[in-house]
Amino acid sequence: MGRVTIRRPVVKLSPNGRRRRPDVLAAEEPLEIRVNGKALAVTMRTPGHDVELTHGFLLTEGVIGDKEDVSTARYCDSVDDSGRNTYNVLDLALAPGVPPPDTGVERNFYTTSSCGVCGKAALDAVRLKTRYSPAGDTTTFSPAVLTTLPDALREAQHVFDSTGGLHAAGLFRADGTMLVVREDVGRHNAVDKVMGWALLNDQVPLTGTVLMVSGRASFELVQKAAMSGVPVLTAVSAPSSLAVELAEESGMTLAGFVRGDSMNVYTGIERLPDDDE
Amino acid sequence: MGRVTIRRPVVKLSPNGRRRRPDVLAAEEPLEIRVNGKALAVTMRTPGHDVELTHGFLLTEGVIGDKEDVSTARYCDSVDDSGRNTYNVLDLALAPGVPPPDTGVERNFYTTSSCGVCGKAALDAVRLKTRYSPAGDTTTFSPAVLTTLPDALREAQHVFDSTGGLHAAGLFRADGTMLVVREDVGRHNAVDKVMGWALLNDQVPLTGTVLMVSGRASFELVQKAAMSGVPVLTAVSAPSSLAVELAEESGMTLAGFVRGDSMNVYTGIERLPDDDE
Repeated sequence: MGRVTIRRPVVKLSPNGRRRRPDVLAAEEPLEIRVNGKALAVTMRTPGHDVELTHGFLLTEGVIGDKEDVSTARYCDSVDDSGRNTYNVLDLALAPGVPPPDTGVERNFYTTSSCGVCGKAALDAVRLKTRYSPAGDTTTFSPAVLTTLPDALREAQHVFDSTGGLHAAGLFRADGTMLVVREDVGRHNAVDKVMGWALLNDQVPLTGTVLMVSGRASFELVQKAAMSGVPVLTAVSAPSSLAVELAEESGMTLAGFVRGDSMNVYTGIERLPDDDE
Repeated sequence: MGRVTIRRPVVKLSPNGRRRRPDVLAAEEPLEIRVNGKALAVTMRTPGHDVELTHGFLLTEGVIGDKEDVSTARYCDSVDDSGRNTYNVLDLALAPGVPPPDTGVERNFYTTSSCGVCGKAALDAVRLKTRYSPAGDTTTFSPAVLTTLPDALREAQHVFDSTGGLHAAGLFRADGTMLVVREDVGRHNAVDKVMGWALLNDQVPLTGTVLMVSGRASFELVQKAAMSGVPVLTAVSAPSSLAVELAEESGMTLAGFVRGDSMNVYTGIERLPDDDE
């Protein structure tokens, strides 16, 4: 298995001069995801939790909906120049009766619309693929609890502490209990690892939970949360326009700029009753 | 043409209560890139500078090396439900004799190696595809000038100012002169827009320039810089392990954590002579 961090020498330049010292970097390696022996995608990820990552990827792409939909997951015998297994190719065999995914570049966008590629078509595609819509989830969440999550996420980021180089995603219950935190050089991978963990631990659909991400909220991250039935997504930074549109269409609560004791709520404020009431 | 920002109402929650106010979001829309009429990729991007984006994408993927390699670039007649052109499908016709790209998921990784997918194979693939290696570029750069670039980049980020939601990439000469800055919800798109600008303005190979990015330095961003002949890449945050490996292999100078008056130099320190000498 690849390492999560790599040591490298670095020269620190400052007004005090040049100082050579060891540095710790977040590891980045390609992972090829195969389904039934056929290449589906290559993602640049931080090694570790690859089985979770691939399960989460297939869940949030709408290929699988349950851990029973995968019969086996195994690393291929891909070796590097020195004959060692790279552990960079993971092949998932789908259970009998589970249809394999489409592999064209259009797969996420053309399923429902004749309008060519556009935001509306992207939203429609997610709606059609979702098995676990968060729309009916009536759990409420305390804003005061939500404001504690960035610190909780940060404290659980062990690799970030040493490298400063990783995105994080964490899953919490409404009372603030942390279920899982995963880190990765790619923010979508951190979320896929979380969702894969949830699937493998029979937690999907993720009713009554909050997904907190360390950066911005893009369309892709909202899609992954929606496909897993997460009712509340919170982000340290800003959401994009299409992220807000998809959250609204999915019946999800989306909050951004969760910093200190305040936050901006873009959709689904009904899940966040006033703490004083 | 789509808009760069979108206005939405937001509820700001704070200890002072709940306040409804208008907010400005960074626009995100899919762009389908077609080559000779055939879909090559879909990227989620901030609309604007799409012709630059597609040229930069094809340059940094090794498909084209010169603006003359593209004979025409035009939006397709894709329309939304109300019959308006979405401006989300851009088709580039290659000049006669320019080979079209491969479209499989393996295209970046299997060209040179029998070892399956691994970091080494990814590095080899970039080396084989590069037309404009920065290795021979003997320009030197003043660390004092490099430390001024984050503020210069930040000041040029007009959309970030209103949304807080965009990555930026900027190209500078060795004396600190700014050539171009582009913003996007995707950091790779911001870099592709910069590289496309350079190609369309006959600036490639980008000898004697610095590319500064607002976030972290991943393998993908180093690849894009290497493919365009950029000798120095600087980032506000951390690089990944494979980013450093590719910078070293490409003969590129890579600096991270460029903050205040200091920075960490991972590779190519010979281009950064001591300002006091």
